[in-house]
Amino acid sequence: MPVPLAVSLGDPAGVGPELLATAWAAREVHALPPFVATCGADLLAAAATRRGLWVPVRRISDAAEAAEVFPHALPVLDEADGAYRPGEPDRDGAALALRSLTLAAELAVSGRASGVVTGPIAKSRLAEVGFACPGQTEFVAAACSVDPADAVMMLAGPSLRTVPLTVHVALSEVPRLVTRELIERRGRIVARALAHDFGLASPRLAVAALNPHAGEDGKFGTEDRDIVAPAVATLRAEGLCVEGPHAADALFARHNRATFDAALCMYHDQALIPIKALDFDAGVNVTLGLPIVRTSPDHGTAFPIAGTARAHPGATIAAIRMAGECAARRAAAAVS
Amino acid sequence: MPVPLAVSLGDPAGVGPELLATAWAAREVHALPPFVATCGADLLAAAATRRGLWVPVRRISDAAEAAEVFPHALPVLDEADGAYRPGEPDRDGAALALRSLTLAAELAVSGRASGVVTGPIAKSRLAEVGFACPGQTEFVAAACSVDPADAVMMLAGPSLRTVPLTVHVALSEVPRLVTRELIERRGRIVARALAHDFGLASPRLAVAALNPHAGEDGKFGTEDRDIVAPAVATLRAEGLCVEGPHAADALFARHNRATFDAALCMYHDQALIPIKALDFDAGVNVTLGLPIVRTSPDHGTAFPIAGTARAHPGATIAAIRMAGECAARRAAAAVS
Repeated sequence: MPVPLAVSLGDPAGVGPELLATAWAAREVHALPPFVATCGADLLAAAATRRGLWVPVRRISDAAEAAEVFPHALPVLDEADGAYRPGEPDRDGAALALRSLTLAAELAVSGRASGVVTGPIAKSRLAEVGFACPGQTEFVAAACSVDPADAVMMLAGPSLRTVPLTVHVALSEVPRLVTRELIERRGRIVARALAHDFGLASPRLAVAALNPHAGEDGKFGTEDRDIVAPAVATLRAEGLCVEGPHAADALFARHNRATFDAALCMYHDQALIPIKALDFDAGVNVTLGLPIVRTSPDHGTAFPIAGTARAHPGATIAAIRMAGECAARRAAAAVS
Repeated sequence: MPVPLAVSLGDPAGVGPELLATAWAAREVHALPPFVATCGADLLAAAATRRGLWVPVRRISDAAEAAEVFPHALPVLDEADGAYRPGEPDRDGAALALRSLTLAAELAVSGRASGVVTGPIAKSRLAEVGFACPGQTEFVAAACSVDPADAVMMLAGPSLRTVPLTVHVALSEVPRLVTRELIERRGRIVARALAHDFGLASPRLAVAALNPHAGEDGKFGTEDRDIVAPAVATLRAEGLCVEGPHAADALFARHNRATFDAALCMYHDQALIPIKALDFDAGVNVTLGLPIVRTSPDHGTAFPIAGTARAHPGATIAAIRMAGECAARRAAAAVS
């Protein structure tokens, strides 16, 4: 039987559980690969009921059983359960989210799962129960013994893929953090991952400029000329298909999006504004550079709408599909 | 007869002339208001022919004749003409572009035109023939005797309106330039203009945060908490409908765009990335805060495709339509 994906619950008071149940209910129409949820059964069944879905949930004792169960029931692999109130996060829920994430990552690292899809958590809540990472990406990197600096976040939607070079830092810190070395290192990781996990034999990377109009040859900032352009030249000299620095505003216009497979962006909002503007309900957060496949829906816990059946399942479905596709490419490469 | 709009040519080697001729040819289907081009006739006729359009061009001696001519021919109001090669800008062309812009602005300032729509220029070329402004916005502001700091650029498309608080400066300069005073001053100008020119009685402004996630209460940058939030509070205390600072990535997602009439953004790319991603072929640059109406298509000269009939006329048509609508609202307000 195929190796399933492991899907973590996310914060049980958020939209994670209902979206997981909704994804299972939509498994056939979206041709989803088999997955197992790392949590208790009652909680998922309750979330499905609240959403108006009939979702049989079946406890299994080994991930290897998941693929056989999956067509008929949503398999779960942990006993940890509880009654949670949507929109009202608490400490017990955070502990459960952490346990679910830990187990899902372990399954993937040990090869019992073909990859991990993480549900949305509340970082500040998780910190209260001992979670010491800035986010789930770093947690999964640590579980894989990979330097978190080499676990690269990519946002992928139907219209666009973007990679923020710097993430959760003040805008004033960004110019100092953008270095030749960082652009080159990340560029290599992204190119390799697009080839291996996304089947793009010769991926085309576009590098966004730090400054407006790419600085107009130093008139508004010298970084694009002195840092970004030399890094692009180095990557090109290594045989990678990399262009830039490109003025970031025009880069995401429709006719330009077709010219690259991923855009390497200098900061958080530069990468996330276009993805969320274009692909809000289908944006996937993919971690590149890891020995395991990891994706996540690109949205948060959405506590205010949890339990109201208003949360859109598109990103969760897309995250599961994409993880399945990446895992299948890795499996095929391992065989050949 | 109605007072026409004055439309400047832009650089004759760019896509300006052909788009102007194309807009006239599409005047009925788009219900365009009458406009007069401030340039010679031969150049426009040649641009139309190259585009495969039949566009009769008629020289008039007074803007007041434009509305009567407009249904039958494209009226032009200047003798300055020449033979220009698409894609090959030169000094004579730059001089013509400057003359056309100057005349169009004069017509609007003197009330002989109801507003001005400026064609795309090459700033560096124009500088060679004595143009001393950073861009056309500042030139038009000067023609109106308005402090350029109070001539506010707004990008408007079918999906979104955005206003960049800072424009052509290095990203590293942005945090220093974002002040309470600037946000408040610009916020007032934008609110007033949306009411007067766009007919929004109580316009809703969203203010984008400088830092990712609006800084998460100071964790990544203190500016949103210490500068942006107090400015928003001041504007609200004045009775304006202003919200923010909002995390900029989610602000432009589809369901959020419906919650505001314009977004005040902290820097160039934050304002222009979403507009160009969503509305590339229909983006209009509107100058708020002037005694005259001024719009412009939100694209450049596009020298590489000039003369090939590939340039999309959507933004030029939208700029003419929007200028006409704003002028009509001002005229109605002046009468009532």
